[in-house]
Amino acid sequence: MPNAKKYTLGALAELLDAKLVGDESCVIDGLATLSEGRPGKLCFLSNPTYADQLPGCAASAVILEEKFAAKCGVNKLISAVPYVSFAKASQLFDNAPSVSLGVHPTAFIHPAIQLPDNVSIGHNAVVSAGVTIGAGSVIGPGCFIDENCNLGEGCRLYSNVTLYHGVTLGNRVVNHAGSVIGADGFGFAFDGSQSIKIQQLGSVDIGDDVDIGAGTTIDRGAIEDTIIEQGVKIDNQVQIGHNCHIGAHTVICGCTAIAGSAHIGKYCVLGGASGVVGHIRIADRVRVSAMSLVSKNIHEAGDYSSGTGIMKSAKWRRNAIRFSALDELAKRVNRLPGMKD
Amino acid sequence: MPNAKKYTLGALAELLDAKLVGDESCVIDGLATLSEGRPGKLCFLSNPTYADQLPGCAASAVILEEKFAAKCGVNKLISAVPYVSFAKASQLFDNAPSVSLGVHPTAFIHPAIQLPDNVSIGHNAVVSAGVTIGAGSVIGPGCFIDENCNLGEGCRLYSNVTLYHGVTLGNRVVNHAGSVIGADGFGFAFDGSQSIKIQQLGSVDIGDDVDIGAGTTIDRGAIEDTIIEQGVKIDNQVQIGHNCHIGAHTVICGCTAIAGSAHIGKYCVLGGASGVVGHIRIADRVRVSAMSLVSKNIHEAGDYSSGTGIMKSAKWRRNAIRFSALDELAKRVNRLPGMKD
Amino acid sequence: MPNAKKYTLGALAELLDAKLVGDESCVIDGLATLSEGRPGKLCFLSNPTYADQLPGCAASAVILEEKFAAKCGVNKLISAVPYVSFAKASQLFDNAPSVSLGVHPTAFIHPAIQLPDNVSIGHNAVVSAGVTIGAGSVIGPGCFIDENCNLGEGCRLYSNVTLYHGVTLGNRVVNHAGSVIGADGFGFAFDGSQSIKIQQLGSVDIGDDVDIGAGTTIDRGAIEDTIIEQGVKIDNQVQIGHNCHIGAHTVICGCTAIAGSAHIGKYCVLGGASGVVGHIRIADRVRVSAMSLVSKNIHEAGDYSSGTGIMKSAKWRRNAIRFSALDELAKRVNRLPGMKD
Repeated sequence: MPNAKKYTLGALAELLDAKLVGDESCVIDGLATLSEGRPGKLCFLSNPTYADQLPGCAASAVILEEKFAAKCGVNKLISAVPYVSFAKASQLFDNAPSVSLGVHPTAFIHPAIQLPDNVSIGHNAVVSAGVTIGAGSVIGPGCFIDENCNLGEGCRLYSNVTLYHGVTLGNRVVNHAGSVIGADGFGFAFDGSQSIKIQQLGSVDIGDDVDIGAGTTIDRGAIEDTIIEQGVKIDNQVQIGHNCHIGAHTVICGCTAIAGSAHIGKYCVLGGASGVVGHIRIADRVRVSAMSLVSKNIHEAGDYSSGTGIMKSAKWRRNAIRFSALDELAKRVNRLPGMKD
Repeated sequence: MPNAKKYTLGALAELLDAKLVGDESCVIDGLATLSEGRPGKLCFLSNPTYADQLPGCAASAVILEEKFAAKCGVNKLISAVPYVSFAKASQLFDNAPSVSLGVHPTAFIHPAIQLPDNVSIGHNAVVSAGVTIGAGSVIGPGCFIDENCNLGEGCRLYSNVTLYHGVTLGNRVVNHAGSVIGADGFGFAFDGSQSIKIQQLGSVDIGDDVDIGAGTTIDRGAIEDTIIEQGVKIDNQVQIGHNCHIGAHTVICGCTAIAGSAHIGKYCVLGGASGVVGHIRIADRVRVSAMSLVSKNIHEAGDYSSGTGIMKSAKWRRNAIRFSALDELAKRVNRLPGMKD
Repeated sequence: MPNAKKYTLGALAELLDAKLVGDESCVIDGLATLSEGRPGKLCFLSNPTYADQLPGCAASAVILEEKFAAKCGVNKLISAVPYVSFAKASQLFDNAPSVSLGVHPTAFIHPAIQLPDNVSIGHNAVVSAGVTIGAGSVIGPGCFIDENCNLGEGCRLYSNVTLYHGVTLGNRVVNHAGSVIGADGFGFAFDGSQSIKIQQLGSVDIGDDVDIGAGTTIDRGAIEDTIIEQGVKIDNQVQIGHNCHIGAHTVICGCTAIAGSAHIGKYCVLGGASGVVGHIRIADRVRVSAMSLVSKNIHEAGDYSSGTGIMKSAKWRRNAIRFSALDELAKRVNRLPGMKD
């Protein structure tokens, strides 16, 4: 991606609140990984594994911790947490297209709605009766916002996002393309011959600074609202069932499936393609590894896993067959003399 | 969500076909969970686990079975299956926005199509040549219905739904936002150096009363149609491959992946994020637990699982390493004296 | 699906480069599976399992290998690789609606863009500034193409596809409905109390002849581009994280989740709902079975699996409990006399 932005290292040191060791007039025109560094680029060292790339790095400067400074032959921006400094630098070099303010003529805004001056409503977007939109919010092309939704300030809906009726977004909520918030929770009562629809009367309430990935779906509650607290970051193609409650600053990686009425704590990390069964409670600061299934309550912070490692399929088949008879094997083994102690 | 609907308990008893024990003039203005019950609200007890919340419930009335009536200090609606009665009550309190009949001026309807009077076609929807739409159907904003699709009566397509050409929906089929029906099945023939596209010549045939969740995809058949029988309920982000056949009233929870040519019986329940490999046959009334993979035919009704339980990652790693050598361990153990019997 | 196309077997033999044994004037009007074959239909035998259906097949002709010819009582098209010949036949009988050339009046094309004559831009599609579109490309209804994307010749975007800014598609790239290319990678730096957004400055670069399924999402790179090489085939609802590199002609089945910075070789096959954790390297010609998780580098071609087989849940629970204590069991067993050798 082309990028016209340039900063001197002196300016960057101030903007990133880092200590410059080197030439303050050196001009930086973009970011690079350590291995791709070249003149004009700013790199960073966060994971110590890559420290051996420092001596050969051809970038103009590197963000790093004090303790690695001696290994680095170019300009240095010393930071206590280089990854955070790098995140801030990435925002300085943002190259996304600027947004046109105003309402595109093909958008439909219900006539009774008063919009702030500085919003942007894209092509063919539909904003229904009773919706409120905060200052600085951007609604992308093809979005559909059903009745009585409330969007805070500085929200960003990319293209073809759907908000069903009554959804609330806090401030600075980001919805990537194709995400769907507030579709009916999956609730049916089986009467012995067919499934009777349970109308989903709640909605979805999303806190400030929540990011929602492309294709992610968050269902409305059956009676009360589904709740996503502030600062939660949700990757692509995540499914969050009705009545869930996700604690503040929890991070949910791509393709994770969370069944209805799960209650997940604050500062958790759910690995990619993990799952949480319904009505589960997970404590704060729990980390679940990729593709693990949380099938019971977790009361204690820490790292959790399920599944098996990966191996050659031929070997796996032999082991999987043994797993199928593991209880039987264990019982027989436990009857052996010498296993009592 | 606000809700203006109100009913007396007397009216509710009749509408829900339940026996009222209490004040028939008591006015109910909404539903609540047992723990959130307060005056004006109607609760229900379905799962006996929550029976101990009955004595403290502050709602105006509770739907419950006769056998729990004595524990309940407020008005009672006695029902043989409280969850079904609750489902019916939820429909009485439906608070979704009403739909405007007619065709929105920004929608495109192929000029040769005759629509019934009482349909609703939303903003920017596109209805292509040869499509038929039954009475009372609602097509949401941004939907695209390609040529020669047939929709029955009372269908509901929420926003940005795509039906590829030739898809058939029965009556009262619901498609939540962003679902895609009839995209090409994933068929390629590998010629030794590249994948040759197999044109997908079949379509998708969906029976009456099928619900399809947000972001769900159901592929068209390679030669014959992919078939979803009546009453099937499909949650969000489910993938159903080409040539599948899903039996009537089966329930498929969120994020389930069903590969091509799977043949699944009636009244099955596939748990969330479960998987079915291609060309598998599953009998009627099979229940698969969350994140399990059906990797062989299942001939008998019942509950099935795969995977392992969840545990602390440190412990999991030690066990997973043992799993990797399980066959070897079992062979050595089986050679021990005392293991013969 | 109705299909008006007809060919004589003589013509088909030439078009498919197969040897006809039988009546060259026989007219074929469609394809069928062996079990559904009837006069006028062309079948194929690829999987030897189905060879016993040959004698009873009532189709007009069958594509098969020489060695099965004696078992087949009807006309034969002899092919070295019948599945490839069948793929080519399926293209001859393609029944998808034809596309109208030109730009629909409701589409928005940025005024500075010069389009080739023979493109098709559907209803309400949006093509932003700086976009280039190659000859013969088709953009479906409701698509949004953000600034500075480059599409090659003969690309096909079905409905409601989103390309974020700066995405490059090679020639003949297919994007099924609702796919999203170039949304932000999932990058945040945790500062101890909240997640700081890492702006995603790279884009996505997709090679020639790549197919992308409905609802699939491919994220833009953090610094460099996410890269999908030529001939890669991606099914529905696949998630590919930022900075991934997918080698040429790899096949990725539905619902697979690939975390960021994974580097996958050429000619791999990732089974349905499989997963790849971040920063993993997978060699060429690796095949991963359905719902397996690649949690470490794979250096050698071959078949790989993780997980367990499926079984009755009651039995599974007993085995899963044993798995939870497997390391302990193995340690005790290994201490037994007789286990030393």
